[in-house]
Amino acid sequence: MQVRLSDQFWQPKVRQTALATIPYQWKALNDEIEGAEPSHAVENFRIAAGEQTGTFYGMVFQDSDVAKWIEAAAYSLRQYRNPQLEGVIDAVVDLMGRAQQPDGYLNTYYSVAEPDKRWTDFAFGHELYCAGHLIEAAVAYYESTGKRTFLDIMCRYADYIDRIMGPESERTHLYCGHEEIELALAKLYRTTQEERYLKLCRHFIEERGKQPSFLKDDPGFGFQFKDRWFELDYHQAHAPVREQETAEGHSVRAMYLYAAMADLAIAYGDDTLTAALRKLWDHVTSKRMYITGGLGSQEHGERFTLDYDLPNDTAYTETCASIGLVMLASRMLRLEMDSRFGDVMERVLYNGVLSGMSLDGTRYFYVNPLEVHPAVAQYRYDMQHVKTERVPWFGCACCPPNIARLLASLDTYFFTQDEAEIAMHLYGANESSFQVRGQKISLRTDTRYPWDGTIQVRVQVDAPTDCAIAFRIPAWCRQPSIQVNGEPVALDAIVTRGYARIRRTWTDGDEILLHLPMVVERIESNPKVHENAGKVALQYGPIVYCLEEADNGADLTDISLAEDAELVAEYREDLLGGTVVLTGEGLRSEEHSWRGELYRPVNRQKNGVRITAVPYAYWGNRQPGEMTVWIREK
Amino acid sequence: MQVRLSDQFWQPKVRQTALATIPYQWKALNDEIEGAEPSHAVENFRIAAGEQTGTFYGMVFQDSDVAKWIEAAAYSLRQYRNPQLEGVIDAVVDLMGRAQQPDGYLNTYYSVAEPDKRWTDFAFGHELYCAGHLIEAAVAYYESTGKRTFLDIMCRYADYIDRIMGPESERTHLYCGHEEIELALAKLYRTTQEERYLKLCRHFIEERGKQPSFLKDDPGFGFQFKDRWFELDYHQAHAPVREQETAEGHSVRAMYLYAAMADLAIAYGDDTLTAALRKLWDHVTSKRMYITGGLGSQEHGERFTLDYDLPNDTAYTETCASIGLVMLASRMLRLEMDSRFGDVMERVLYNGVLSGMSLDGTRYFYVNPLEVHPAVAQYRYDMQHVKTERVPWFGCACCPPNIARLLASLDTYFFTQDEAEIAMHLYGANESSFQVRGQKISLRTDTRYPWDGTIQVRVQVDAPTDCAIAFRIPAWCRQPSIQVNGEPVALDAIVTRGYARIRRTWTDGDEILLHLPMVVERIESNPKVHENAGKVALQYGPIVYCLEEADNGADLTDISLAEDAELVAEYREDLLGGTVVLTGEGLRSEEHSWRGELYRPVNRQKNGVRITAVPYAYWGNRQPGEMTVWIREK
Repeated sequence: MQVRLSDQFWQPKVRQTALATIPYQWKALNDEIEGAEPSHAVENFRIAAGEQTGTFYGMVFQDSDVAKWIEAAAYSLRQYRNPQLEGVIDAVVDLMGRAQQPDGYLNTYYSVAEPDKRWTDFAFGHELYCAGHLIEAAVAYYESTGKRTFLDIMCRYADYIDRIMGPESERTHLYCGHEEIELALAKLYRTTQEERYLKLCRHFIEERGKQPSFLKDDPGFGFQFKDRWFELDYHQAHAPVREQETAEGHSVRAMYLYAAMADLAIAYGDDTLTAALRKLWDHVTSKRMYITGGLGSQEHGERFTLDYDLPNDTAYTETCASIGLVMLASRMLRLEMDSRFGDVMERVLYNGVLSGMSLDGTRYFYVNPLEVHPAVAQYRYDMQHVKTERVPWFGCACCPPNIARLLASLDTYFFTQDEAEIAMHLYGANESSFQVRGQKISLRTDTRYPWDGTIQVRVQVDAPTDCAIAFRIPAWCRQPSIQVNGEPVALDAIVTRGYARIRRTWTDGDEILLHLPMVVERIESNPKVHENAGKVALQYGPIVYCLEEADNGADLTDISLAEDAELVAEYREDLLGGTVVLTGEGLRSEEHSWRGELYRPVNRQKNGVRITAVPYAYWGNRQPGEMTVWIREK
Repeated sequence: MQVRLSDQFWQPKVRQTALATIPYQWKALNDEIEGAEPSHAVENFRIAAGEQTGTFYGMVFQDSDVAKWIEAAAYSLRQYRNPQLEGVIDAVVDLMGRAQQPDGYLNTYYSVAEPDKRWTDFAFGHELYCAGHLIEAAVAYYESTGKRTFLDIMCRYADYIDRIMGPESERTHLYCGHEEIELALAKLYRTTQEERYLKLCRHFIEERGKQPSFLKDDPGFGFQFKDRWFELDYHQAHAPVREQETAEGHSVRAMYLYAAMADLAIAYGDDTLTAALRKLWDHVTSKRMYITGGLGSQEHGERFTLDYDLPNDTAYTETCASIGLVMLASRMLRLEMDSRFGDVMERVLYNGVLSGMSLDGTRYFYVNPLEVHPAVAQYRYDMQHVKTERVPWFGCACCPPNIARLLASLDTYFFTQDEAEIAMHLYGANESSFQVRGQKISLRTDTRYPWDGTIQVRVQVDAPTDCAIAFRIPAWCRQPSIQVNGEPVALDAIVTRGYARIRRTWTDGDEILLHLPMVVERIESNPKVHENAGKVALQYGPIVYCLEEADNGADLTDISLAEDAELVAEYREDLLGGTVVLTGEGLRSEEHSWRGELYRPVNRQKNGVRITAVPYAYWGNRQPGEMTVWIREK
């Protein structure tokens, strides 16, 4: 399968990631960005290699920032050849080789700062987590360039881990507090076809949550964060994975675990894992997910809290958790082609992921709340995790390179394919080609999606080819229609689990016209979401909108919408790099009627005001100010 | 002036305070309440006196719990003679005498736990604060019983403090992080007429906030809580008191300071202090006060945050801060008879203070939020300060004896009097008598207030007496009227700053009929209060209402009120000890229309449901459940 994006929404962002974000992030990792939080991540490798003096600086998982950056760069090289960038990566890889210990171990924190503590803190030490990100980077770099050096380094490390952990070792009961190694081992298996990596992946997943848990004796777990938000469920270690029915604990950890479980279910055809994943999926997406696809309702523990507890202003909604949800959704689609996975993947990509980065690709949110009042967020103790403007870098910089690696590999999320079927999950202009039973079939997709719901797909084949092409029919669309070569298709007959499946013998020049009419929708929350009672979010196609102070003035909570107020969608070339905005009449209090009182008998006189909503993901790209996704209905 | 309450609202609470709460709290102070947090407060005095072995236990200000309890008991003795209770107090007083150091110092924490650290931590050590509460207790006990022992003990302590601190000492620049000694010294002056106590009070107030502040060098300030919520403003030490224009920092500290400033302004006729107080009063009541009279928007620092930042569910709203606001309001009335002070005093008494104690007087709230979802409050890290049910005692037990001393002295808040005028600030049946230019004038007030707004006042005089009687016309009342001996009085002519002043020669049997019609009012917040946008609070007379799960089911945020829905007030003898409840039709989502979705296109179908609102102060006296003051309008 080959996919080349050419659309006006994602492709410029993918290109910018390659040409601006990746170079920028390399500077950040080398502390060359003025005013940014220090990283020291590359320097740590030099110190670990004995080529620099000095001490380790950063989080215990600082190595993973470099790893995710290499992975992002590796993906970008597929479309944007860049020998100079390859040279930079090759040099870092060589440095890593020199920092690797004779037994294969590679971790700058434990090598430099705590050499006696290797493998002592599985709860919070992040050693296997860092190993995992380095492995994913090595696989990506090998797949993009064919260069084996990094892959060999990481195979040596993986082999060492496999020797000392796993079902046959004496350290049989261990697994990492932060899941990631599991995803990496599944990838390493797919690239190397060495089954021991898959078995080790399975071991880590199968061990997880067995009781009594070794984590109870782990000093990292026992002493570092002994409060109830950091108990076993924080690590998804409260029950064996197949017995977990609710999404609990640290949201990023949870998503990475579930994604790895899906990898394992795919690799082994393990339906018991798939059954568990279905429950977890339904739970998280129907009880604990923000409308943006954000996950994690509480900063303390960066975690899930309770069903329907989705505060907008104190939300954690880490960019990495949304990225993890994309990873999970794409794997769930491989297990079962159901649009509930594709719909969420689309939701989270356009909203909760994309909000994590500025339009120019060089400023980031770690936390993505749905309502921000800058003065309050800056003052209040319970909102100290909220940044009211995107920043150049973080002391804990997991998110920026994570969003870079996702965007640089975005083409891989558009389609899946099996023997006799091509499925299109995301929409955007692209050129793609597939091998179906030895036949090449190419699709050329033209669309202005997500600003318009008309999607034209032209089929190119050398000879008539028999296969199915499936299209996701988004749940947000009320009146979808499809034509093939100008002939309407009866959707009822061909839609299963949200996918319209057109099975025929395709001939060159066949044209499929998918029409997904977009209208401005007002969305409400389940009444159990206390914060959103009486409020609506505006959605247009897959995009969730918000009000910003820049367009609507301060005190956004004062704005309400009449039930019958018409909202119009229009494309604005000049705004935020070109976007559809929603405009209409809102209502505001009569300000002059207030004479300094704090409370008074209700006076319902309102003034009409023009309101403008912009995509949530684009907020905070102009002057700082308030933002809200949920808007009161009057 | 003598006032004897006989009403059906307050008098039963005053009586219960004397007969149930005070005995209960004595047990709590002696660790005789099963399941309650330990106190050890009396035991600390025994250890300090050398009569018990053991170590100090509790907060550094644990002594003040005993002091406030004695003060409450002393007030109760005026109406409820109780030789056995007096015996208990006398014994504690004797114990305190034995615990007092030869130089007059009396503080069990520093005597027992840190004898070398006396007067080293003015920011957080609470030594002068504890001294203040002991002095207030001694004054109250002397005033009630005429017994001098406690007063003498505390004069010795005050004299010692006066020797080592104050304008003539070398420790000229000091004051206590937590204001209280100032209030106590003003009282001690009024009882003893020793002017040095008033001068020391003035010194502490005048020193406060001078820059650079000694607090910057105080190890307690420098090292204990070095974050920005505990800077100088936390202690109201950021500027000299006359230059403070906004209410900042720890809310209880702020109220105690302002109340003491008012004492000083009264004692010295200092208009510069009064001018500062007017600004502070207007600021706190028009920008930072909950509708219940609660103060303090944030747990961290137990403090004020920003103007209009009044979150309902994470509110701090400490009972003690509301009590402090009553103290301040009553003093402001003495400085300037304006109903804005009396109105707030009434608001906070009926709502934010009374909510701090259960109907039976033995369970307490420290924090008084305006919206509670028990499962969320119990789970969420940012709501750990919120108790979802009143508890038998606290590890930090400042509030329970504070509410006891307020209720036991409630009669003193009803009237003020000067040479030729008697002013009635609070309403409730009572018998009161006054000396006006040597003439005795008695008033007998009959009313069902706060459940009904008709107030009948009969004048008893031995001979015709010329004086004014003033009545507060509450701001909540839209159509007040007054009759004297059946004749209507033109209010326009006699109302000044919210007080109707009837000046005449009163003869025996004159009757004043005050009619303050109560209706159910829907109150809205200033649009800058984000949390309350689109919501109303229900008020009936001075009482703020709330919805409870016990009457209305769970998910209270789902309930809305149509703008035109009629709400009826009716007295219910059987409910919550007898109370007016408000009932009417509310709207709820059609629950069966939800099929597990978290989000969906808005469906505005609502079902009518009967709703019942009860006084906010009475919430949490039945089964545990949700509560909300602010209700959406549809």
